[in-house]
Amino acid sequence: MDEFSFIDEIKQSYYRQPSLIKGIGDDGAVTQPNGQNVVFVKDMFVEGIHFAAHTMSPFHIGYKSLAANISDLAAMGAQPAFYLVAISIPKEWPLKKIATIFQGMKRLANKYQMDLIGGDTVSGSELVISITAIGYAEDNKARYRSDASVGDIVFVTGTLGDSQAGLHILNNPGAYLDESYYLMRHQMPSPRVEFALELIRLPRLSLNDISDGIASEVHEIADASKVTIVIQENKIPVHFSYGQFDTNKQFKWKLFGGEDFELVGTVPKQHWNCVQEAATLHQIKVSKIGYVVEQDSRSNVLLQLENGKKVSLQKDGYNHLSR
Amino acid sequence: MDEFSFIDEIKQSYYRQPSLIKGIGDDGAVTQPNGQNVVFVKDMFVEGIHFAAHTMSPFHIGYKSLAANISDLAAMGAQPAFYLVAISIPKEWPLKKIATIFQGMKRLANKYQMDLIGGDTVSGSELVISITAIGYAEDNKARYRSDASVGDIVFVTGTLGDSQAGLHILNNPGAYLDESYYLMRHQMPSPRVEFALELIRLPRLSLNDISDGIASEVHEIADASKVTIVIQENKIPVHFSYGQFDTNKQFKWKLFGGEDFELVGTVPKQHWNCVQEAATLHQIKVSKIGYVVEQDSRSNVLLQLENGKKVSLQKDGYNHLSR
Repeated sequence: MDEFSFIDEIKQSYYRQPSLIKGIGDDGAVTQPNGQNVVFVKDMFVEGIHFAAHTMSPFHIGYKSLAANISDLAAMGAQPAFYLVAISIPKEWPLKKIATIFQGMKRLANKYQMDLIGGDTVSGSELVISITAIGYAEDNKARYRSDASVGDIVFVTGTLGDSQAGLHILNNPGAYLDESYYLMRHQMPSPRVEFALELIRLPRLSLNDISDGIASEVHEIADASKVTIVIQENKIPVHFSYGQFDTNKQFKWKLFGGEDFELVGTVPKQHWNCVQEAATLHQIKVSKIGYVVEQDSRSNVLLQLENGKKVSLQKDGYNHLSR
Repeated sequence: MDEFSFIDEIKQSYYRQPSLIKGIGDDGAVTQPNGQNVVFVKDMFVEGIHFAAHTMSPFHIGYKSLAANISDLAAMGAQPAFYLVAISIPKEWPLKKIATIFQGMKRLANKYQMDLIGGDTVSGSELVISITAIGYAEDNKARYRSDASVGDIVFVTGTLGDSQAGLHILNNPGAYLDESYYLMRHQMPSPRVEFALELIRLPRLSLNDISDGIASEVHEIADASKVTIVIQENKIPVHFSYGQFDTNKQFKWKLFGGEDFELVGTVPKQHWNCVQEAATLHQIKVSKIGYVVEQDSRSNVLLQLENGKKVSLQKDGYNHLSR
């Protein structure tokens, strides 16, 4: 397969987004947003750093790379619309395998009617994928990390730690409960787009997606909003068979594991029922896991342990508080 | 320098684009295009493939990578506005050197009031840079390859072959006329944005930028427009000291060399004077190099040699015509 037939293979035969004026086939793509805000996200993935051949098939690599970008759009309150892909391809990767990466992306793109509108294919010594995803948000309805306020409820969708549990299973084959569930959560995560868009009617909401572990994401909200966030450890939702893993791992994965691509956010108390309704409507779980207080000089994020004690939760661990 | 202070270093202290609502610092960036078309371009560059350490300093790598993307925007008739950068950084590259790459980008971005609004930094084993650039075009004024028509004049800006001549000088040190001119053309090319925007008043225009050599670019116009384009070899503009290089190299570089980032296009005869005026206004050279005819079954691009004979010009060479 030469490069030209390869581009024909990954190019869509038709486009679905009505705002698209020109897709693949010129120096650039052209859209007409028609009054909406345009939201841009961009992530890069490197083989050996972000994924390994024995845990992720080419299809999974494509699926998950686009999922990570769509999850960022969801966290911005944006409707996914387009994506562009630049890929650096090592000689030893046959184009057929690369085409499978694009099929993985397409599977998820189809779900959201997203169009692939451009990109670049180059040669390199390692596989590198860079995706730019573009979405639309209603004017003044993009969701920021900086919008948390004292008194807000902190919520999170789904269950945490699943992706790292899946990776653990892949690296340590054995007999596990719900094995295929955990693998799916690691290889084909579900961005929470519909839920985020359902919350459009709320006047204020802070939102972040969980790519790096909830500790890190909650810090970003607290730092940007200049508040302190208290997380209650026993409220952090986990899958019902999560208890089968080592206790230390459970604790580490759910707080610092990342790649679950769930959403964490804060909302005024009086709108908590709307958040619950949105979750019910889209058949996902949502849990209240904490609350927002005035900025505490000791830490922007506190973890309340099962014994009631509060510790300072860092992005990658925790410290006992000194007084 | 850790990653956080590094992001502070490359982050702009203020943004200039009035349509920007949210820049770096959340899951994504947000803009409000206000009725204009939005144009997206994306290119990827790999060390050892697109540039080498002995011919391109980190500053040049940044400058030229962004220039290539801006050149694509110019070829779309778009005003550059934003860029996002994802970069995969090998361990042995100190962050200071990476910061210099971003300074190279900034130098050119400043010229066009472009804002850096997002991206990603990851680790890898080789330097890979992926840029997404975003521009605005007036509604229905984006310029396509498919808009050439029979009877059009074919024009090109500047002089061709200079970038490859610069690379040749870098790889073969010696005494050359206008050495610094050719190096500049290779390391810090000038996208023809102002010229392209000046042509906004023309009702029809096909346009492409010369990243891969004029033979390849003219093929793209001819293929997309379903016409045949005749290029007159002796009309292809070269720098006045270009004659110092080997005759075969001159021929090869100007037709197939690429990376000059000039613009090639076609325009109805009656608008040729407008094209000349636009070039004069922005102090660049523009040359008439050929014309558009009905699709010729022998080839979509014909090269008329100095002796009057026409040959079939391929993307990467030429064939004598068989009858």
